[in-house]
Amino acid sequence: MSNPSLLILPGDGIGPEVMAEVRRIIGWYGDKRGIHFDVTEDLVGGIAYDTHGTPLHDDTMAKAQEVDAVLLGAVGGPKYDALDFSVKPERGLLRLRKEMDLFSNLRPAQCFDALADFSSLKKDIVAGLDIMIVRELTSGVYFGEPRGIFKEGNERVGINTQRYTESEIDRVARSAFELARKRNNKVCSMEKANVMESGILWREVVQKVHDEDYPDVELSHMYADAGAMQLTRWPKQFDVIVTDNLFGDLLSDLAAMLTGSLGMLPSASLGAPMANGRPKALYEPVHGSAPDIAGQGKANPIACILSFAMALRYSFDQGDEAARLETAVEKVLADGARTADLMGAEGGTPMSTAEMGDAVLAAL
Amino acid sequence: MSNPSLLILPGDGIGPEVMAEVRRIIGWYGDKRGIHFDVTEDLVGGIAYDTHGTPLHDDTMAKAQEVDAVLLGAVGGPKYDALDFSVKPERGLLRLRKEMDLFSNLRPAQCFDALADFSSLKKDIVAGLDIMIVRELTSGVYFGEPRGIFKEGNERVGINTQRYTESEIDRVARSAFELARKRNNKVCSMEKANVMESGILWREVVQKVHDEDYPDVELSHMYADAGAMQLTRWPKQFDVIVTDNLFGDLLSDLAAMLTGSLGMLPSASLGAPMANGRPKALYEPVHGSAPDIAGQGKANPIACILSFAMALRYSFDQGDEAARLETAVEKVLADGARTADLMGAEGGTPMSTAEMGDAVLAAL
Ligand SMILES: CC(C)[C@H](C(=O)O)[C@@H](O)C(=O)O
Ligand SMILES: CC(C)[C@H](C(=O)O)[C@@H](O)C(=O)O
Repeated sequence: MSNPSLLILPGDGIGPEVMAEVRRIIGWYGDKRGIHFDVTEDLVGGIAYDTHGTPLHDDTMAKAQEVDAVLLGAVGGPKYDALDFSVKPERGLLRLRKEMDLFSNLRPAQCFDALADFSSLKKDIVAGLDIMIVRELTSGVYFGEPRGIFKEGNERVGINTQRYTESEIDRVARSAFELARKRNNKVCSMEKANVMESGILWREVVQKVHDEDYPDVELSHMYADAGAMQLTRWPKQFDVIVTDNLFGDLLSDLAAMLTGSLGMLPSASLGAPMANGRPKALYEPVHGSAPDIAGQGKANPIACILSFAMALRYSFDQGDEAARLETAVEKVLADGARTADLMGAEGGTPMSTAEMGDAVLAAL
Repeated sequence: MSNPSLLILPGDGIGPEVMAEVRRIIGWYGDKRGIHFDVTEDLVGGIAYDTHGTPLHDDTMAKAQEVDAVLLGAVGGPKYDALDFSVKPERGLLRLRKEMDLFSNLRPAQCFDALADFSSLKKDIVAGLDIMIVRELTSGVYFGEPRGIFKEGNERVGINTQRYTESEIDRVARSAFELARKRNNKVCSMEKANVMESGILWREVVQKVHDEDYPDVELSHMYADAGAMQLTRWPKQFDVIVTDNLFGDLLSDLAAMLTGSLGMLPSASLGAPMANGRPKALYEPVHGSAPDIAGQGKANPIACILSFAMALRYSFDQGDEAARLETAVEKVLADGARTADLMGAEGGTPMSTAEMGDAVLAAL
């Protein structure tokens, strides 16, 4: 049997630096644990635009469809701000999500004990926090038509369309309930059913999926504005949150920031099972391309390393190996290893990107 | 010259209780300061539905168009959850906003010194916080057409339309720049121009209004997800934030929660000037109808009282009298007056809704 295949897309900014550390971790799994991957690397985002005039070349898209999992670094940077909407770095990422049909975006918001002090929130509010946001990723206002800037009388109007079908809501709801069963068995669904009909349908379908197939999971509904408040007030009330593409964008960033561990948080974007039973999958850190510190060896590689841990768990059924990597990361943090973003009042050992990679390898 | 006119719409839940205290404050201004208002009272929300079968009767709508300012308590409650979308309590409020064309919703997020400990955020992050969110209130996905739940093949689809014209963006941007000039001269505009064309138009128009007429104000742009993060991380970086209806809904609730003073925060919704030069205006607390504590004398009337202070300032050009009322509120808080929502670890004097009203009157 051939090795499982990985497509690595380091992208822009700090993407290549953090991904270099992930490649060393992947190497370690081959050498020490006999878990081998066939790795290919390609371009996405601004660097793909610079090379091919498009943020995602068709050949890269085709490769992404064939591999067992994609690992992505980050896309974007000020250099590309003036580009036309259709070729901006983000479009490369959005095309991957859409064409791979990665409808379920898992964003854990987890507070690492060693880092609880970094949060702008009080320690008792965030210490031990562990919630999972499941964001719908292939529909809603990100992709709905009509969209664009149109002439109307003697002025212009900007239009986007929020759009959800029952089956789109159904499948992401199921993935949230499945996850909840492996966690604390609670799902909170967020929308604006008080002002949006798409939210009414969202609420109704989530409730139906629950009642028919997941009655054992505790389900609640919350308006997204109240959700933003409650996340800020007492985030530990949540286990799994399921929400749409746009609300998920804001709420997951908010949840990530609560933990104080932004440079630490991974994500998984999953689609339907392929012929080999594995889901279509893309893994990426929640942080962006951080152009201000790119190329200086300052970036924190942990979010990207933990994204690979999610790949081990969700794509390759290696939950134990994923836990091994996660434990190694917790250990280095507990030992005081700190990249620049983690240097706070209480000190620690300052480390470059590569030194943090060394530390994780040593802990493995 | 006749007195300025006020329409009071107490609404549902704790609305009537908190509004009763405002009426006493209004009485005080008549008795002691010679500032008289012609006050009429009417129904909105669930109670209007119970009485008239609609959350806002046409006669009430007509009155709201004629008065100098509307004061609203709160709408909604679980009793009305099963009602059809078109007659839900919220529709009454949304109709007022839309037909009065109240495009500029001012939501101060201010942290009261005496209450900084109530925030889930660290004290140094929020103490002294004073930002103003300007939310567009009459357009965007709240009102865009087409909208509804439609049949498509053999399933249903929920659709809403995000929609902004240049002139809609222009006018709310102007109100944000005007406000900034009276504050710290900084505006941050938030949208998702990286994924939404309506956001591209938003950014472009805000920039144009700035460059042409407000070059003296410092303007920045931020994606709304990054905005949610930055509000959580270090809210004091902001002065005025201008954003659309839906982002404004989430971000202003988030900002309100940061302050720890949710039961304290007022809002003003302003439209174009009327024949008498006053803007169309509606004032309401940011908090909701809190059905769980309604009718028990537990509600905090301060947000509603401060909404009346905003009316004095923005509708009646009585900035000094508004400041007098705000100072009275700060004093009672500093003296330890606390409704149930404000009872924390450090104690204070527990008070009912009416006792808090007494305290504010005494401080005046
Ligand atoms: C880069 C951008 C297009 C993207 C989004 O809006 O989805 C990002 O914010 C994210 O959350 O992954
Ligand atoms: C009650 C509801 C319709 C309303 C809104 O979504 O605008 C509320 O959340 C608000 O922010 O005033």
